[in-house]
Amino acid sequence: MSSMIARNDAILITGAEGFVGTHIVAQLQKSGFTNIHGTGFRNIESLQEKIGHDHAWKIDLEDQEAVNQLLTTLQPKAIFHLAARPSVNESYEKAWLVLQTNAHLQIVMLEAVRRFSPQSRLITISSAAAYGRIAVENGEKPLSETTVFKPENPYAVSKITQEYLALVYFYSYGLDSVMVRPFNMIGPGQSTDFAIPSFAHQVALIEAGQQNSLKVGNLEATRDFTDVRDAAAAFEVLMQQGVSGEVYNLGSGRGTKMQAIVDQFAQFATADIPVEVDPNRLRPSDVPFFIADNSKLVALGWKPTRELTETLQDVLNFEREKLKEQA
Amino acid sequence: MSSMIARNDAILITGAEGFVGTHIVAQLQKSGFTNIHGTGFRNIESLQEKIGHDHAWKIDLEDQEAVNQLLTTLQPKAIFHLAARPSVNESYEKAWLVLQTNAHLQIVMLEAVRRFSPQSRLITISSAAAYGRIAVENGEKPLSETTVFKPENPYAVSKITQEYLALVYFYSYGLDSVMVRPFNMIGPGQSTDFAIPSFAHQVALIEAGQQNSLKVGNLEATRDFTDVRDAAAAFEVLMQQGVSGEVYNLGSGRGTKMQAIVDQFAQFATADIPVEVDPNRLRPSDVPFFIADNSKLVALGWKPTRELTETLQDVLNFEREKLKEQA
Repeated sequence: MSSMIARNDAILITGAEGFVGTHIVAQLQKSGFTNIHGTGFRNIESLQEKIGHDHAWKIDLEDQEAVNQLLTTLQPKAIFHLAARPSVNESYEKAWLVLQTNAHLQIVMLEAVRRFSPQSRLITISSAAAYGRIAVENGEKPLSETTVFKPENPYAVSKITQEYLALVYFYSYGLDSVMVRPFNMIGPGQSTDFAIPSFAHQVALIEAGQQNSLKVGNLEATRDFTDVRDAAAAFEVLMQQGVSGEVYNLGSGRGTKMQAIVDQFAQFATADIPVEVDPNRLRPSDVPFFIADNSKLVALGWKPTRELTETLQDVLNFEREKLKEQA
Repeated sequence: MSSMIARNDAILITGAEGFVGTHIVAQLQKSGFTNIHGTGFRNIESLQEKIGHDHAWKIDLEDQEAVNQLLTTLQPKAIFHLAARPSVNESYEKAWLVLQTNAHLQIVMLEAVRRFSPQSRLITISSAAAYGRIAVENGEKPLSETTVFKPENPYAVSKITQEYLALVYFYSYGLDSVMVRPFNMIGPGQSTDFAIPSFAHQVALIEAGQQNSLKVGNLEATRDFTDVRDAAAAFEVLMQQGVSGEVYNLGSGRGTKMQAIVDQFAQFATADIPVEVDPNRLRPSDVPFFIADNSKLVALGWKPTRELTETLQDVLNFEREKLKEQA
């Protein structure tokens, strides 16, 4: 549907200062893209440094007029719509806030694209969390894009809502929509609200003598981890090769037990790492296996290049540095 | 999960003055239920007459405190949560309004049940519209509950959101949730925004010499029609026999071409009925077949009892009477 996007075409990334956004910016710059725009609200100065002062936009993405104007001005060839409330835990406490925000961010963007920048390719971020409890029936078999959803938390519902709205605008208005369901993305810079960076942060604290044991949740769970830098490369492939109206799993296709991650960190550590299960880290509902069938994405020419051990080492080193800087 | 609901147990119906709500009230009364409560906002007087002055509640169902108080007071054994914006057409024009309202109505009710009436069985109204474009791939085969969704309009997304939120609260909080995906329900009293009552209304106008031709949309489409009185009986079966956490298609399992409906009305009519395709009645997106696999519901002991011709005759007579009253 869309032709190839050229190095000097305008590209817009919402939530560009976030964990994934930061890495997509870096990936696109590495590939030679020179006209990258981003929106942010926390680290706007850092974003300005990276993509240029006149390319970093501090706007309210729930303000329809503001988004209309931004798209009218930029006429981006591609939009990565990453801005969203990302937390499963928050969604248990504030179901309506998370659902309303994520759904509204999606509708505002869809309306702005439809009316003011209909040639833009819109990349919508769904989530593998959409599969939810169906993974229990599915067992150790990788989850394909044609698996039905059985979401377990309000965050997952908000992401399904975003994905399906993108599909509706594809069907109804011919909008150039590509939807992505990322599995667990990990790497340096991720919030310690997530398990892997939390483990790494705790290991760094134990090494520094500031904590006694590593507090963990369910270590029996098997998850699919992709290095965020590999994921960023996948997003570039989807921007160029993704088929309009289609949804793609983004995952390594490889399952890893949480226990194996903890063992790897313990091996890297310069101190003994006693492990302690913390009931607060167990979710109301959890599935044993969660592995992506990534064949649809792989068929476009992507594959993960980083070994998990390399990623875990990078995450641990990042948390060690952060701790030193804070000291 | 829930025990049988007794004739004097409190039952709450939101949107009780609407098309389906009215017929569920009638069905439950016919079955001998004596403690039926309903909410409404337009025809509250008519609702008061039917179920008693102290059983008809005029409250804002998006007001969390008001809904909390209602459930605290009533402690209903079952809740039919019918209140919603029901229009596909409105959802094209006002996507955010329809999505926000339906999702919010659902979250407010789920939170109220979870916190103040956790023993209530909540019956959530999804829609066969959720299947959407997948029906093209599915062909003439009836759509089962395990078919993936490919929604075509924002209304369908709002109904999926409601259904999945009900599932999340079942998984996370053990809420007694039963979800229903109704296919086309028809019968006397339905808004002429829908195709069948619109046809009947136009036929009545043509018979009265007030209109020249019957304006129609896509007559090639095959749909699954259930008499709303049969549907109301299905809702009672689901209240008593539905399995918690499960979703049920509600449909006749029988496909009828729109052309056959028009032919039937023309046969009933006392005047010639010239037919004219009106481009405004063609939707941006439409699927050829839409037939329910209703085996899951039928296994609970329900089956439709009314012939389609009988229903169409009733709808036409209703529209004829309405026209006479307006004259």
